[in-house]
Amino acid sequence: MLSVKTPEEVCEIIKTQFAPVSDRAETISYTEAAGRVLAEDICASEYVPAFDRSTVDGFAVHAKDTFGCSDSIPAILQNTQEILMGQAAGFTLEEGYCAPIPTGGELPRGADAVQMVEYTEDYKDGTTGILKPAAPGHNVILKGDDVYPGKPVLSAGRKLTPQDIGALAAMGIVKVNVVRRLRAAILSTGDELVSPEKSPGPGQIRDVNSSLLAALMTRLGATPVLYGIIPDQEALLNRRVKEAAGECDLVLLSGGSSVGVKDAACRVIEAQGEILFHGIAMKPGKPTIFGKIGSCPVIGLPGHPVAAFFITHIFVRRLLAQLGGYPLREIPVMAHLSESVEANHGRAQYNGVFLEEKDGRMTAHPIRGKSGLITTLAGSDGYFCIPRDCEGLPAGAKVPVTLYSMDG
Amino acid sequence: MLSVKTPEEVCEIIKTQFAPVSDRAETISYTEAAGRVLAEDICASEYVPAFDRSTVDGFAVHAKDTFGCSDSIPAILQNTQEILMGQAAGFTLEEGYCAPIPTGGELPRGADAVQMVEYTEDYKDGTTGILKPAAPGHNVILKGDDVYPGKPVLSAGRKLTPQDIGALAAMGIVKVNVVRRLRAAILSTGDELVSPEKSPGPGQIRDVNSSLLAALMTRLGATPVLYGIIPDQEALLNRRVKEAAGECDLVLLSGGSSVGVKDAACRVIEAQGEILFHGIAMKPGKPTIFGKIGSCPVIGLPGHPVAAFFITHIFVRRLLAQLGGYPLREIPVMAHLSESVEANHGRAQYNGVFLEEKDGRMTAHPIRGKSGLITTLAGSDGYFCIPRDCEGLPAGAKVPVTLYSMDG
Repeated sequence: MLSVKTPEEVCEIIKTQFAPVSDRAETISYTEAAGRVLAEDICASEYVPAFDRSTVDGFAVHAKDTFGCSDSIPAILQNTQEILMGQAAGFTLEEGYCAPIPTGGELPRGADAVQMVEYTEDYKDGTTGILKPAAPGHNVILKGDDVYPGKPVLSAGRKLTPQDIGALAAMGIVKVNVVRRLRAAILSTGDELVSPEKSPGPGQIRDVNSSLLAALMTRLGATPVLYGIIPDQEALLNRRVKEAAGECDLVLLSGGSSVGVKDAACRVIEAQGEILFHGIAMKPGKPTIFGKIGSCPVIGLPGHPVAAFFITHIFVRRLLAQLGGYPLREIPVMAHLSESVEANHGRAQYNGVFLEEKDGRMTAHPIRGKSGLITTLAGSDGYFCIPRDCEGLPAGAKVPVTLYSMDG
Repeated sequence: MLSVKTPEEVCEIIKTQFAPVSDRAETISYTEAAGRVLAEDICASEYVPAFDRSTVDGFAVHAKDTFGCSDSIPAILQNTQEILMGQAAGFTLEEGYCAPIPTGGELPRGADAVQMVEYTEDYKDGTTGILKPAAPGHNVILKGDDVYPGKPVLSAGRKLTPQDIGALAAMGIVKVNVVRRLRAAILSTGDELVSPEKSPGPGQIRDVNSSLLAALMTRLGATPVLYGIIPDQEALLNRRVKEAAGECDLVLLSGGSSVGVKDAACRVIEAQGEILFHGIAMKPGKPTIFGKIGSCPVIGLPGHPVAAFFITHIFVRRLLAQLGGYPLREIPVMAHLSESVEANHGRAQYNGVFLEEKDGRMTAHPIRGKSGLITTLAGSDGYFCIPRDCEGLPAGAKVPVTLYSMDG
């Protein structure tokens, strides 16, 4: 094929040919935002904490009242009113006085340190002995120590974690702009396909790609929209693709493994839009088509589920980030191959692996299998790539493994 | 405290004190099962593929008819009927004949190999020249090559990935037994707490733990059940904890940082059940309580959100696995510290990090901050642990980082 691209070229094409969708953001409650991608930078708009707080149970003091004290020569301070949780201190601590304060309690005006209750003694006569000096700021979080108005906290493009939700709660940011879930149309084509619920007749097989791609789209933060199994009829395919491109943000068309249909996918895309390329120099996944109808990407995925899966995880994931306007962040895990892996294809080869950690050494077990449909998919943790100029890797070689569950 | 435990002891207590919930499994559709934990081993119950299939577009042949052929001396075979996708071949291929077959098509009886169309020549007279010999099995996936009835495919305890869903679809396993979502009661206690939607008054702060823990429970596959903010009133707390323990599979009680309430959590658990231990030799998270009411675990988490988060990620996650009856799987990422980290506490120290990958080297930036509420939580990727017998780690030290998003 004339327009076969390398994986690197495909990444470049995704970057240059597709722009973020125009209505990419939506505003949702912070309680719904975990796992969503921030569409805005988040800065604090308040001081946290909003007042000087004690970090221990103890006594609020003027630090200088405690200088030089010790077990044998305590600083003797007059007791004053107790500070209660959740209430303003509401008074000024005079020099020579101390005030009982709980962890998290507000320091009274004048106080600049807290001594832990363990280092005090109650003389039961309205005075307390401080047995250890406290420097100014000791056991105190000052107003704004954590954040202050305008301080950047979270960057646009970040996939929000549970702890980010906690940070939003702390700042009182209860509405956030996130990238809306992109709608991914999923079409499986092929006369041989039947729904997994059905028992395949002679020559038929179950449609794997619909549920595989739907689960993967959900995992990647998109909403799968299933258009079902399309028989190998070009007019019908044409109609359904048009419908899908009109209703969704991207179209994943898989299958078409019979001779006539291979070209049908191309013809359908060309009739309504344009083909960007046909074929990627990689294994699995070579017979992949990237095109667009208007601004809607249409990806012709290989019918083989393993190939469809790899292409989706490697490139469609990247496309989702591009359409959503956020960077793709990958944290590969370095692992040692448990056995040698040959590659002799003149194209980049992607291998699924199962990871095993033992005594700090991470081992990647390559997943084998000639046919490899189920055995390649089920149970794998991620993949590594053997570049096309490499003939293989020996057992023990260190490879960066991209995990399926870390994408994002 | 008398009963302070090491992190290792806590893991052991979780294992020995809590058993899987009795009604732990539920049956759901495979399309809903991604991210859920398998409660049964999955074995294939059919042959996949169910018939001998071609892996290429070409001609089904008797391999021995092609032996010795070449470009210059083709094997000339009689054409017979074309095999169509999704239909039974329905005939026997006699020796000396070949049949056009698409990728995925069913081999006719008698045929034992397929030669690619690229290595054939159509003589337009009802015969085809085969230009390259094909060994038996060439370009064919035999019935059951992938899986056969009884072959183990997925193990109980596995968190199902999108590709596992694809494997289930291929085998026609459309219902699966998964561990049901455990119900986690979340109670925040403290007179000082207000809902994040509200503007805190003097001495008040926003409740961070409810939304933080809810998001984390969801992330870990449990269903959070929010019991709201409970003021520091022991009778009320007692009532709400009783309610929660009756309605849920575990109870997460956070806060109680004022002096009186610290003991209230203990008293409430003791009144209704038993305390397993109070205090873990770690930082953050020391003032943690593990108890149970009947068979329901009740965890008293520290009020400080960072500590509550670490305890939940490290131990409650493990508890969820124990209650769900599945193993916890962790794949740490090895990374180099960007700066030295001191530890001098005589207890295990857990440090949040932000990861950065550059040219194959993974760097862990420790997250600093004295108060560290928001700045510690927001933006972190995972954590590493400095054991309690270690005084710190130098810049460049290699540490295993547990990622928040890989928990299994």
